[in-house]
Amino acid sequence: MSGSLVVVGTGPGKAELMTPATHAALARATDLVGYGPYLDRVPALRGDQCRHASDNRVELERARHALALAASGKTVAVVSGGDPGVFAMAAAVFEALEQGDPAWRTLDIRVEPGVTAMLAAAAEVGAPLGGDFCAISLSDNLKSWTVIERRLAAAADADFVIALYNPASKARPHQLARAFDLLRALKAGETPVLFVRAAGTDEAEVVATTLAAADAAVADMRTLVIVGASTTRQVGRWVYTPRSERGAAS
Amino acid sequence: MSGSLVVVGTGPGKAELMTPATHAALARATDLVGYGPYLDRVPALRGDQCRHASDNRVELERARHALALAASGKTVAVVSGGDPGVFAMAAAVFEALEQGDPAWRTLDIRVEPGVTAMLAAAAEVGAPLGGDFCAISLSDNLKSWTVIERRLAAAADADFVIALYNPASKARPHQLARAFDLLRALKAGETPVLFVRAAGTDEAEVVATTLAAADAAVADMRTLVIVGASTTRQVGRWVYTPRSERGAAS
Repeated sequence: MSGSLVVVGTGPGKAELMTPATHAALARATDLVGYGPYLDRVPALRGDQCRHASDNRVELERARHALALAASGKTVAVVSGGDPGVFAMAAAVFEALEQGDPAWRTLDIRVEPGVTAMLAAAAEVGAPLGGDFCAISLSDNLKSWTVIERRLAAAADADFVIALYNPASKARPHQLARAFDLLRALKAGETPVLFVRAAGTDEAEVVATTLAAADAAVADMRTLVIVGASTTRQVGRWVYTPRSERGAAS
Repeated sequence: MSGSLVVVGTGPGKAELMTPATHAALARATDLVGYGPYLDRVPALRGDQCRHASDNRVELERARHALALAASGKTVAVVSGGDPGVFAMAAAVFEALEQGDPAWRTLDIRVEPGVTAMLAAAAEVGAPLGGDFCAISLSDNLKSWTVIERRLAAAADADFVIALYNPASKARPHQLARAFDLLRALKAGETPVLFVRAAGTDEAEVVATTLAAADAAVADMRTLVIVGASTTRQVGRWVYTPRSERGAAS
């Protein structure tokens, strides 16, 4: 098959946080496929480019459509925000590939890495991801809440810094509060908690608080939440996790 | 104080994976501070720019030097590879800030996010980080091996995808083998294991194997190792972790 498909991420928001490799892949594409608001971030790069915007939460359908376009000979870019491999479209594309026409597996398929939300959020506040860390999506659309609770408990037990993606949506307003309750039983009340909204955009906002005081209502769909490790601490207006844990409580 | 300091990451290697924001920060700097090989990746952006190259493993000293330069009025960029907040220089800068002259806290300090190695490694092979994941540095220079073992066990227990940074060096050849031994006792032998060397460069190489067959000797200092979750699987020449864990073993 002569078509190709590249999965890209536009980064956290600002154009200056999109890599040149992603920009070049977008400029080569004849067809852009993605969730509307992400496609809107892509500047008009050529006149003959066709945009296929879709709603949120139809990732698999969107991925199939992109693969079918590529199979028909198009040069397709599937557009995510952030990094396409982290809670975004790349996994959906390979899922659709696995379930779809076996001939699709001969397509030229690539993934371009990008700046994922937790890195932009961390940069807004200092260096909270300076030690070992984990990333957990709080959405229970695709996994059970039991699995999420088990991961939160393991992360607390292992003293990982915890980055929480998808902490809240209109359909799921209570999960972050439940996560905080669970973590409060396992971690110190003074553990730093960071709500970073619209990280990597000009509207970035940070609320720095503690686990004891953290109010889940602060988070919305554009928020990334970081819960510190036992060593995470404040210096001036920054929060960071030291590289060294020698001498730290373990 | 009139000086400023920005901590940047040049990305995994290729110039096209460095963000324009980082490029702009480097172009503004009067002084670049970093480990020699990372500084060598930065093109000559202006004639009056002073480069302060240092050896590896003197991060704190380098960070102090950068803060002192900023305090003297310079426009300083501290240069890491990858993302500066992930096992790189940003945490060292805030550590030096905490320990140093209190006046340094009034400096204009910023962090620019970048593409960290695990994202570039994941993109080379498909979408192995498609579910919840953790990042662990196997270096025991800055923490005890006991802490590392506890995190590996927790990550296996919680069924995180595991990204292993610093899997091996000449001074530490045996740790990855010990990590594999520990994980083999806790995870299925057929779990996908990916050795991605020089991800995000033109010399990228991938070895895809299983936990049962994984040979730690494959890894060197430029390798990022990814150990799959129970759902991580192969489709064609790609490896990915499905977004959905509904119906998966838990």
